[in-house]
Formats: sequence, C-alpha cells, structure tokens
Amino acid sequence: MVVHDREPFNAESPRAALRDRETPLDAFYSRNHGPIPRIDPASWRLAVDGLVERPLALSLDELRARFPETEVVATLQCAGNRRAGLIEVRDIPGEDPWGPGATSTARWTGVRLADVLAAAGLRAGAGHVAFAAPDVSQLAHPPQPYGGSIPVAKAVGPEVLLAWAMDGRPLPRVHGGPLRAVVPGWIGARSVKWLERITAQADPSANYFQATAYRVLPPEADPSAAGPGDGISLGPVALNCDILSPEADTRLPPGPTLITGYALAGDDRAVARVDVSLDNGATWTQAELDPQNGPWTWQHWRTRLDLPEGTVLITARAWDSTGAAQPESPAHLWNPKGYANNSWARLRLACRP
Amino acid sequence: MVVHDREPFNAESPRAALRDRETPLDAFYSRNHGPIPRIDPASWRLAVDGLVERPLALSLDELRARFPETEVVATLQCAGNRRAGLIEVRDIPGEDPWGPGATSTARWTGVRLADVLAAAGLRAGAGHVAFAAPDVSQLAHPPQPYGGSIPVAKAVGPEVLLAWAMDGRPLPRVHGGPLRAVVPGWIGARSVKWLERITAQADPSANYFQATAYRVLPPEADPSAAGPGDGISLGPVALNCDILSPEADTRLPPGPTLITGYALAGDDRAVARVDVSLDNGATWTQAELDPQNGPWTWQHWRTRLDLPEGTVLITARAWDSTGAAQPESPAHLWNPKGYANNSWARLRLACRP
Repeated sequence: MVVHDREPFNAESPRAALRDRETPLDAFYSRNHGPIPRIDPASWRLAVDGLVERPLALSLDELRARFPETEVVATLQCAGNRRAGLIEVRDIPGEDPWGPGATSTARWTGVRLADVLAAAGLRAGAGHVAFAAPDVSQLAHPPQPYGGSIPVAKAVGPEVLLAWAMDGRPLPRVHGGPLRAVVPGWIGARSVKWLERITAQADPSANYFQATAYRVLPPEADPSAAGPGDGISLGPVALNCDILSPEADTRLPPGPTLITGYALAGDDRAVARVDVSLDNGATWTQAELDPQNGPWTWQHWRTRLDLPEGTVLITARAWDSTGAAQPESPAHLWNPKGYANNSWARLRLACRP
Repeated sequence: MVVHDREPFNAESPRAALRDRETPLDAFYSRNHGPIPRIDPASWRLAVDGLVERPLALSLDELRARFPETEVVATLQCAGNRRAGLIEVRDIPGEDPWGPGATSTARWTGVRLADVLAAAGLRAGAGHVAFAAPDVSQLAHPPQPYGGSIPVAKAVGPEVLLAWAMDGRPLPRVHGGPLRAVVPGWIGARSVKWLERITAQADPSANYFQATAYRVLPPEADPSAAGPGDGISLGPVALNCDILSPEADTRLPPGPTLITGYALAGDDRAVARVDVSLDNGATWTQAELDPQNGPWTWQHWRTRLDLPEGTVLITARAWDSTGAAQPESPAHLWNPKGYANNSWARLRLACRP
C-alpha cells in the first residue's frame, strides 16, 4: 500500500494491485476521516428511521435472516483519486496526493438497501437516504461523526448493498465492519463504513461531508471559507481511466511493450472505448477491452505499442456509452479541494536499450 | 430556420430562436432521413407487439381514452448537433454542417410509454423497445423505413412519452404527427416520428439507424465500410453547451456585453455550472443559471463581461452533476460521421468602437 496518512489512516493501492479484476483484500484502498472505530458486533444495531412507516432496529443476525443475501462485484473510487495530477498544476494544501490507486474492486455480500427500505416502508416526501457512522472526524467543521446521503432513486437500485462481507470474508474493520453501505458507481464517500443509522428524509444529509466537503469549488474559491451548498456536490463518478503498466518513471528497452490500465464510466454508464497515444493525442490506437466482471466494475484494457528510444509520454483516454471522452488537461479541471480529476492519463518513461 | 437540405428536409433553429425557454413551434429543428409521410389519422393504428402478453392495435382515440394524459417539457438534441465544429477540423463529406441549432425544446403531450407497455405486459426477456416508422430512407444501406430502439430501463421511465401534441397543438406532420416517441435526454434519433409499431424484443433494433448509423467510429474508420455493431452506439446525450448571444461574426462595440447560451447535461444528469472565458480557458467567470423548466430541459445561462477592443474569442463550457466538464478541443473528438461534438463552445467577434 502507498500510505498517505497514519491517523486517520489513508492508503492507496499500488498500481500492480490494480491489475487484477478484483483487488486483493489487503491492497484495497482505505480512505478515512477519523479513527477507525472498534464496534462490538454483538451489541451493534442498525437503526432505520426518519420518513418510514415502521422504524427498525436490526442486529446483524436479524439483517441476514430477514432479507435475501445478495452479491455485487463493484469498484469503489474516491473523489480524490488522481488528485496528484491536479497538484502538479497548482498545490492543494492539506489534501493527500492520491494517484490512481484510490480505486479498488471487491465482491461485496450483504442485503439490498432497497429491501430494507421496503420493510421499513418509505413515506411520501422521502427524497434522500442518509447514512450515519460513529467515527468522529476532527477534520470536519465542527468536528462530527461521518455521514452522507444518496437520493432515493439511487438507494432503491438493486446494486446498492448493506454489506457484511468482502471477497467472501467478514468485512474487515478497516473497510467498515461489521456493516457498510456499498453504492456502486458513486464516489466512495457515499459508501459509508461502520454504518449505524439509515434515515429517510426530504433533503440531502446536512453532515459536513455531504453539505460542505466533496464538492468541486470554482478555482478562485477559498475552501476554508466554503459553506454548506457551495460548489458542485459529487455523487456519480465521472468517466476516468489510468495507466497501470508499465510502471511510471521506470527505464525500459524500446520496442513492442504491453500497456495496460483501467477505466471506469461511473453510475449507469459503460466504458465504450479506450485509446492510447504516444504523441500526446495527435494519433491514437484503440486498446483491447478485457472481459468485464459485471456492470458495476472497472474496465481493464490493454494494447501493445512500439515504444521509441528516448523519453516517451504515454497518454490514455476513455470514451463512455454517450460517446463522450475524457477532457485533455488537468489545468482546466483544477479545483481548490482537488476532486474529480478525470483528465487524460499520462505516464512518462525513459526508453533506453 | 437554417435549411441544410430540402429532400429529406433538414433544418436547424437559428440561434435567436434558441434563447427562449421553449422553442417557437415554427423554429423547432427538423431532422429527417426520408420523405415526410402523409398519414391519415382515421385509419392509422399503433401496433404494440413482440415480447408482450397482449399485443395491441390502438387508434389515436383509443390511446387517448385508455391511458392518462401526461405532459413533459423536454429538449431534444440531434447527435449531429455542432458538427460544424468537427468539420472545421477535417471535412465530413455527405453530412450536414449543423451548428448549435439541432437542439430545441417543446412541451409534449401524450401518454407514458410505460403505461402502454404495462397494458401490453412485457414478457421475460424483453430488454429493448423498438420503434418503427413508415418513412423509407434512401440513405440507409439497404434503403429501409426509419427505426431505432431504447433499453427497457429507459422505456419505462415516467419521462418517455408517445406524444400527439406539441406546445398544446396537434403534433405537426413535420414533427411526426399523428404520433411520435419522445425520449428526453437521449439523442433525437431515438424519438422516432410517425410511430407505427412498438416491439418489445431481446436485443436492440436491427434497423440501419440503430445498428449502423448514429455511432462514433474511430477517426481512421471508413464510414462507408462500417457494419452493424461498429463504433459507439449513441443513446444518452453527452454534456454540451453553446453560446447564443451575441451573434457570431458580428461587429460590436467593446465594453460590458451580455453573453448567453444553453447547456444540456443529458439523460439523468444535471448542468451544475457554466463557465465563460475571454482568454481561451486560462481564466473563467461563472455564468448565472436561469431557472430551469423541469428536469428534462436545457439550462440557459448568462453573464456580462467587459469585451476588449479587437478580435475577441468567447469560450464557454459546462460542468455536470458528476463534477465532469466538457473536453477542450474538437480536434480530439473528430469522428468520421461527425457525432457528439461536445467540445468547448467558441465564438469569435470583432469589437470596434
């Protein structure tokens, strides 16, 4: 793991670990805003309340017994993924320089949030489903437990889980055990870990991490002065890709070289094509797309190109199912908190015999 | 109207007509692939067949009597909108140089496709809903009536209509009367006019305009050799915007000048921000967003900037609700049929006192 902080613990997957269709459990990225809570599964209960007909309080055993078990393979991606590319444009003080590894894929087991909401009975006026956790973040203003929300339309999708297992093993504490939300296709921040409370409500969560953080502010904004509602609130992940091999800043012999990477289209869109260029986008070669592991995962891609001698810049970009492509330059996407960098992927190499 | 062809009739809305929240009926863009059919509403019937429990044959009166009347204000946008910007990069023989006016907004009245499909009873295995029309296109290979399809997940959305009225008036023949599909947020090609048959089926339509046309081919492809399944099939519209005032290539005095335009996010996304630049994207001013006329319409925007003397290049770009922005350059989006140009909007002016 590439560890950015010890407390709160923030670490990204190394590029090599991202080459598997499912990320090894011990290499799955970890993004935290406070201390990792220690929860006693025996006394833990999940509360479901707010705009519901029948508030619930469920133990893990009750949750498992009452609702059908469901498995979804899903990629999670942090909104700060690839922030390093924005920091190269202009510094972003106080935020970690995540590379492409704030992204990982796992097989999640749990129950559908939709089934739990149906059992509770959503009442008229329920527009959003808020998640609350016990980890108090000192980074929030004021310090508060972590939380967030998603609109009801997403919450009732069959892909949204309350998960107690990851790759067939009990959900590790660092990944939200005993229970977390898994919201495929949305920024990882909405897949709330150590889930304790689900509240149906009219409006999005007023929690700091929904109302103020995880927002694209205009370049001239002062993030320390940003208040609730400022900027673009992030939900679905934007189309993105990065290069996984060869390794960056390595020395390779010139000649035919396998270039691989991942792409992710976000929410209900699909990756339709990935192009790779050796001349900064003047000409492109279409990469081959690997078989995809279900609709909620990344799309691995590969191509073999003849690398010339000297300094080589490899560029990659993805297209989605609307015929849209990633934007070219991180300079035009720079924002004060460094979110949603989905500019072309670039990797520099020295090719010498 | 800016008329591109008389036969088949293809004409776009002038920029001035796009400044209204709803486009005047006589200025709504018209995109056709064959002669405009003359249909006798008295003998016309809509067939609903394929993977359904109860095939239907409905007159217009039966359709109106049997299902609740619904109104949706929706923007339609042709996949070839703003092709002119791609043609400036490299010629696209045989395709019309549409400007920003292959886009218009109307208030549509009809019934929900979802209600009609529910009455027919979709059978297991129905993945797509195909639309068929009688207008035979000589541009198809081989010549054939126009058709297309949308996935069932979109077809059952409350926004998808079978419409018989536009702005409260009977649907004009040129816009698909007596009945057309209206698929908000998707390329106009799927809002099939002169609708005669709706078929539930496992796969997308095999019609030329679904299987072969309306696809983003890679730049090196020979479009005359493209076959079914090649390229990226277009469905949801990609994030886009253009500048509506001042008029292009006009001469204006320097000084504070109102700049307006439209933006469209496509399908279930929203326009979150629009930026305007006078220095080709080095710095941006956030435009003010007008009140939006419902979730399925474009987003008008406006800002007042101090234009300097000399040649002025105004640039605009939109951001959507995923925090994604439009890509910079049409050169990187060029494709052999000229679809889905959603690069930054640019408008050149001469400012002289």
